[in-house]
Amino acid sequence: MRIFKRVSKPVGAAPGTLVHVGEKKVEKSTITVLDYDETQVAESEVEAVAACAAFKDSPTVTWINVEGLHEVETLRELGECFGLHPLALEDVLDTSQRPKIEDYDDYLYIVVRVIRYDEADDELRSEQLSLIVFRGAVISFQEGGGDIFDAVRTRIRANKGRIRKMGTDYLMYSLLDAVVDGCFVALEQMGGRIEALEEEVITDPKRSTMITIHQLRGQTALLRRAIWPLREVVHFLERGETPLLQEATGIYVRDLYDHTIQVVETTESFRDLLSGMADMYLSSVSNRMNEVMKVLTIIATIFIPLTFIAGIYGMNFKYMPELKWIWGYPLVLGAMLAVAAVMLFYFRRRDWL
Amino acid sequence: MRIFKRVSKPVGAAPGTLVHVGEKKVEKSTITVLDYDETQVAESEVEAVAACAAFKDSPTVTWINVEGLHEVETLRELGECFGLHPLALEDVLDTSQRPKIEDYDDYLYIVVRVIRYDEADDELRSEQLSLIVFRGAVISFQEGGGDIFDAVRTRIRANKGRIRKMGTDYLMYSLLDAVVDGCFVALEQMGGRIEALEEEVITDPKRSTMITIHQLRGQTALLRRAIWPLREVVHFLERGETPLLQEATGIYVRDLYDHTIQVVETTESFRDLLSGMADMYLSSVSNRMNEVMKVLTIIATIFIPLTFIAGIYGMNFKYMPELKWIWGYPLVLGAMLAVAAVMLFYFRRRDWL
Amino acid sequence: MRIFKRVSKPVGAAPGTLVHVGEKKVEKSTITVLDYDETQVAESEVEAVAACAAFKDSPTVTWINVEGLHEVETLRELGECFGLHPLALEDVLDTSQRPKIEDYDDYLYIVVRVIRYDEADDELRSEQLSLIVFRGAVISFQEGGGDIFDAVRTRIRANKGRIRKMGTDYLMYSLLDAVVDGCFVALEQMGGRIEALEEEVITDPKRSTMITIHQLRGQTALLRRAIWPLREVVHFLERGETPLLQEATGIYVRDLYDHTIQVVETTESFRDLLSGMADMYLSSVSNRMNEVMKVLTIIATIFIPLTFIAGIYGMNFKYMPELKWIWGYPLVLGAMLAVAAVMLFYFRRRDWL
Amino acid sequence: MRIFKRVSKPVGAAPGTLVHVGEKKVEKSTITVLDYDETQVAESEVEAVAACAAFKDSPTVTWINVEGLHEVETLRELGECFGLHPLALEDVLDTSQRPKIEDYDDYLYIVVRVIRYDEADDELRSEQLSLIVFRGAVISFQEGGGDIFDAVRTRIRANKGRIRKMGTDYLMYSLLDAVVDGCFVALEQMGGRIEALEEEVITDPKRSTMITIHQLRGQTALLRRAIWPLREVVHFLERGETPLLQEATGIYVRDLYDHTIQVVETTESFRDLLSGMADMYLSSVSNRMNEVMKVLTIIATIFIPLTFIAGIYGMNFKYMPELKWIWGYPLVLGAMLAVAAVMLFYFRRRDWL
Amino acid sequence: MRIFKRVSKPVGAAPGTLVHVGEKKVEKSTITVLDYDETQVAESEVEAVAACAAFKDSPTVTWINVEGLHEVETLRELGECFGLHPLALEDVLDTSQRPKIEDYDDYLYIVVRVIRYDEADDELRSEQLSLIVFRGAVISFQEGGGDIFDAVRTRIRANKGRIRKMGTDYLMYSLLDAVVDGCFVALEQMGGRIEALEEEVITDPKRSTMITIHQLRGQTALLRRAIWPLREVVHFLERGETPLLQEATGIYVRDLYDHTIQVVETTESFRDLLSGMADMYLSSVSNRMNEVMKVLTIIATIFIPLTFIAGIYGMNFKYMPELKWIWGYPLVLGAMLAVAAVMLFYFRRRDWL
Repeated sequence: MRIFKRVSKPVGAAPGTLVHVGEKKVEKSTITVLDYDETQVAESEVEAVAACAAFKDSPTVTWINVEGLHEVETLRELGECFGLHPLALEDVLDTSQRPKIEDYDDYLYIVVRVIRYDEADDELRSEQLSLIVFRGAVISFQEGGGDIFDAVRTRIRANKGRIRKMGTDYLMYSLLDAVVDGCFVALEQMGGRIEALEEEVITDPKRSTMITIHQLRGQTALLRRAIWPLREVVHFLERGETPLLQEATGIYVRDLYDHTIQVVETTESFRDLLSGMADMYLSSVSNRMNEVMKVLTIIATIFIPLTFIAGIYGMNFKYMPELKWIWGYPLVLGAMLAVAAVMLFYFRRRDWL
Repeated sequence: MRIFKRVSKPVGAAPGTLVHVGEKKVEKSTITVLDYDETQVAESEVEAVAACAAFKDSPTVTWINVEGLHEVETLRELGECFGLHPLALEDVLDTSQRPKIEDYDDYLYIVVRVIRYDEADDELRSEQLSLIVFRGAVISFQEGGGDIFDAVRTRIRANKGRIRKMGTDYLMYSLLDAVVDGCFVALEQMGGRIEALEEEVITDPKRSTMITIHQLRGQTALLRRAIWPLREVVHFLERGETPLLQEATGIYVRDLYDHTIQVVETTESFRDLLSGMADMYLSSVSNRMNEVMKVLTIIATIFIPLTFIAGIYGMNFKYMPELKWIWGYPLVLGAMLAVAAVMLFYFRRRDWL
Repeated sequence: MRIFKRVSKPVGAAPGTLVHVGEKKVEKSTITVLDYDETQVAESEVEAVAACAAFKDSPTVTWINVEGLHEVETLRELGECFGLHPLALEDVLDTSQRPKIEDYDDYLYIVVRVIRYDEADDELRSEQLSLIVFRGAVISFQEGGGDIFDAVRTRIRANKGRIRKMGTDYLMYSLLDAVVDGCFVALEQMGGRIEALEEEVITDPKRSTMITIHQLRGQTALLRRAIWPLREVVHFLERGETPLLQEATGIYVRDLYDHTIQVVETTESFRDLLSGMADMYLSSVSNRMNEVMKVLTIIATIFIPLTFIAGIYGMNFKYMPELKWIWGYPLVLGAMLAVAAVMLFYFRRRDWL
Repeated sequence: MRIFKRVSKPVGAAPGTLVHVGEKKVEKSTITVLDYDETQVAESEVEAVAACAAFKDSPTVTWINVEGLHEVETLRELGECFGLHPLALEDVLDTSQRPKIEDYDDYLYIVVRVIRYDEADDELRSEQLSLIVFRGAVISFQEGGGDIFDAVRTRIRANKGRIRKMGTDYLMYSLLDAVVDGCFVALEQMGGRIEALEEEVITDPKRSTMITIHQLRGQTALLRRAIWPLREVVHFLERGETPLLQEATGIYVRDLYDHTIQVVETTESFRDLLSGMADMYLSSVSNRMNEVMKVLTIIATIFIPLTFIAGIYGMNFKYMPELKWIWGYPLVLGAMLAVAAVMLFYFRRRDWL
Repeated sequence: MRIFKRVSKPVGAAPGTLVHVGEKKVEKSTITVLDYDETQVAESEVEAVAACAAFKDSPTVTWINVEGLHEVETLRELGECFGLHPLALEDVLDTSQRPKIEDYDDYLYIVVRVIRYDEADDELRSEQLSLIVFRGAVISFQEGGGDIFDAVRTRIRANKGRIRKMGTDYLMYSLLDAVVDGCFVALEQMGGRIEALEEEVITDPKRSTMITIHQLRGQTALLRRAIWPLREVVHFLERGETPLLQEATGIYVRDLYDHTIQVVETTESFRDLLSGMADMYLSSVSNRMNEVMKVLTIIATIFIPLTFIAGIYGMNFKYMPELKWIWGYPLVLGAMLAVAAVMLFYFRRRDWL
């Protein structure tokens, strides 16, 4: 996990300077357009950015999806074509943004983080998604490491649900809903790992357990940093402070807000669980250690006095009457047994065994 | 305890898609209707959903209780019959909802969680209860693992208290009151377990004690997640922001709010108690361990120098004058006693014994 | 300390059902009436509740004090006589209430908790006090385990201070002031115990110290749960949101509010102190343990190599030239001394002694 | 440090009863008067309180400073002379007040706590300062353990700065500023101690270090309890909610507020530092202990198997062929060396040495 | 790290007294002037302060930068020349200020802290920057230990971006943006150190690791104290509560606010990370220690009973039949092997090895 992600933005550059800050995740950036209304759908891949301009004022709903943010020049053209503010475009390119929503009067600018569970590394990945929402078009900018919008696309193509009947606000809602649904998937996977870990903490705490707890805590913190501001973003929409949002969509946004709260609360409860498990781990480890030490110390303690007795009769004094007694040896053995028995009895009575 | 409950909701499904998310707790879902006003009560079990429609606009108060949420088709019919919004119905079916209240203008949609103490598993269970409150009817949806509304039903049948004289708002209040009363029962049972545990932590801390503390903490967290938003739900009602609530009921809702606050505070105090007990446990365990180690180490420490002395006179040097002294053996024994006495005296003076 | 107090309220009873929830603290409940104005005082014990009705509309200030809450029937009569709402009366009888204030238009209903230090058990006790404040009468309901209002009564009888010149609002203030003064007494006693304990934690930490800290923490939590809502009650009065409170009394209520804040803050500082002392205890105990272990381990460590040397010359090999040297024995003794000295020197240089 | 200071206020006394609560810090209480305007200054010590009355309505600014609060009768006279409310005067005398500001229409009543560093005891002391601010006079009540207002007096006498040109509000500001400046001095001294302690915690943690940390935490808590409400007092003034405060003084009060915030933040950062140091101390101590235990245990562990080998050849069996070998003794010595070497190698490879 | 920085401000000085509080960081203080509008730029170093007065009312934007704050007399002249309030100037000179913004009607006074990473000491340094923003001029006061405004100067000279087209509000924004950019650089460097440290904590925790964690925590606290109030300063500007800020600049200030929030959140996440690492360190150290102790104790424990057996047959009793058996020695050796094997088996079965 990279702790601090800001890479290579030149300090002191003029505000509005377009620089791609982040990893290059796809070889070539692609722009696809999905144009639809209640009666028809048209899908195309765009080569020349200028072609997009036509969609800006068309009465249909247009969804322009950009995947890959490293081709700065193309994005600048797109920005100019749609009249985006340089600061908004700068933020689109800088993939270390914190989720936020900004109202630029004729469009909304939304940044959220898409949470994905990377099976290979067993880790959460967070990618930036920017949405520019006009009254007639939505532009989405993805970094490109996987697509979470397939279900939305399918619903548009197949005219399932209300999506074809509604405007860009409902499309925006659908995209954000897909993002939140993605969080649920990530949470489910983390939940599974946490459950498995809880078992392990109680029955068989190992050094690796603690490291995993530590890592999961880091992941939860990552999730938290992505989710808390997302909550604010959705809350802004839910309060209906933008005219771009139509009343019919309001009820869906409220539902989305509920889901976001649920994600937030689950994340918080994971935090609590992991913190409780760290305590449990420490207690388990020291418990086991104590058990080991106790049994071993008791063994040592019983034999030390016995060894001392043996040592006494190993001395080479000339005048040691006991050594010549016929019953000396059995008596000493008996005495040793007696000492051991008394000690064991005492230990048991004090409940140390 | 399942950490994360969301089961099987297909990610990316269109909003408003009806899917039952949760366990199937009763074999067959049943719909019972209780229709009453000040003068008469009628009770029936409904087979065909259409039969319910008649109650919608009748002047009497109608309470339709649905137990078991897996028969999606029946519920869809019921929803259509009462004109419920698809999103509300979707939430009724998804039993991983967080308590909330939503005002759909001509009806209120309330989700709360019913807390039940499962004697068999010694664990709290949380089930979802949804209420749809119209001016003339209340529909309640239960998952079905036990009924907490028997007392309310009895009061209606026997015309005890005011319930028959009041409207659906009072019925809603009575149902929520039953839910909060259920919380008190659960709290009482948890309180009993915590009290027993506190005794155990101080007098006889065992490994299982810590695990029980950990489990109770998890239960408290569960309770907390169910109760905090319930508080907001009741607060919404108490503020009187819905015209469905009549003034005469207001004072009862205020009382309900007080009870909810009491549940919240008791839960918080359980949290504090359990956290204090976890500290106490660690301190108790390390205290006991220290006691064991100290006594054992002291025994070992006293015998080690003595064994050394014995070892000296066990050496086989030809020229060791002491070995030939007549009083050699008794002198050495005396010296050993003296060493032991000095050490014991020193340990006692430093207060280690 | 009972963790959860709710006893025997039948779950599912209709709201407004009168049941005494709590212990019976006096054998027989008594009702005393103190009726006064600027010129005269009349005191009497009431047998028949109906006799109280006369005081309701009299121009004098009437203070009806009820001690003992288990005679439900008497209280119901009293309630009806003064037109109390069933919910208010239900709360008076349920002694597990959280402090609160409720405005029933023609009377205020106040619940607070009276904190008393029980010398016998060395524990804080919390009892419920309910006040019903009319424009012309105050009814106070006490559980009955001791009377904190004697000073107020004396002031009324002796016409000391302003109490005889003012109305029921000033009487209410005086009663609440007595409750807060009682808190100060309890705090002083706890403060004394905490101070003594702090000394003990630093100089001589024992197992019982930790248990006492734990108990005092529990007591502080109890105090806190009684005090925080009391603060809200007094704050409600201070904001002057009820017409029952006259302006001249306002300044006294502000003073009362300051005292309440002082109690809250002292309680919070006790919490901090106790938490700091728990840390201090753990550190003290482990410090002492470490000291013991270190000295003992050092003794053992020094003698182990020496015993090994003695063991070598205790071997029975036929060909061990040193055994036959005349200076063998003294040389070995010298070597042992040298080893011990080197080890002691090393330990001291590393600052372990 | 006395944990709870309230001494001897008779519980149940009528509100407004004048009792001096606190220690008597000066033998005799003195009243000095400083009367000034832009052109002239007059200073005098007052014997008869009645003499003060003249200053009440004079156009000049009058500062009456009372030192020593145990002569209740004198203070009562003064109070009557200036028409102070009994509750205000009661609070002046009760030196366990929490900082607060109260607006009695024609005067402001301000209580703050003066923090002083007592060199002798190496401890912070907190004393109560009450200010009564009229439009034409300021009365200050000090407990009397040292004077922090000398600089203000000098500025008035020497006509330095604006003080002679401004009214009582600026005088009040100057006195409060002196109090906050006193806090800075105390903070500087604590800061010095904390810095020294931090060094000690890292390089040479001793038992006394922990006790000092504990004491400094107590002091910080004391400071905090004095400073937080002071902040509220100054905030009240800064909001300009009293007509006694003229606009020209407003900017100075804002500056004072900034200083108060700085004191609050420094106090908070001390809290954090001390808490971090307590953790550091525990970690340092256990680190040192571990180091000791590890080396000692390793020594013991190496010699135990060797001693066992020596023990074997110390046995007196008749038929032990090795004992008769010529090379038996050197071989065994060699074997012992080998065992020790292998163990040391193993310990080093596992990085335990 | 100096814990408390306030040096040498004379306590009790009249408010508005000009004293330089802080270190002298440059030998000679310099004043440079940058005067520009859309068409031209003029740069000069000022010797006589009076020369600045001319710029005050010129229509161009003037940026007067003062480096070094110890020449009090020069600054006083500058202050008088621009009509600054003595309190503002006092704060400029006192370099222990907390970030704040103050509106003096015809100018804004802003204090922020510039965070710099000192490579030599591997530590963060915090310096004070004061800005006085008039409608036609900005005066910046730096302590002088390095310049972070070079990029802004270059942009002005080269006419890059919008800076030459905008007023003093955009200049102010640019300077604050440079400060926040400086924070990002410092965060990146801290982030790198934290990442390296995390690796170390898990794989090879050493005493120095803990000290570094402790130091980084101190640094984070420093950063936090500088950043939190900066956030409030920028928030004040973002709310547009001052007429000095033109609408066109508003969008840039909003962007600045986002960056500030990002810095705040990164600082908070560093805090969490470091706190998690401290826990991890303690757990790692005790884990390693436990491992060492366990293996060593097990070795000791196995040999102690064996040594006891050897001790028995080392006794010199005359009548010990075993000693004379031909198979005595091999049998005992065998018995010892058996005992060791049983113990090892037992330890392994209990999972202690």
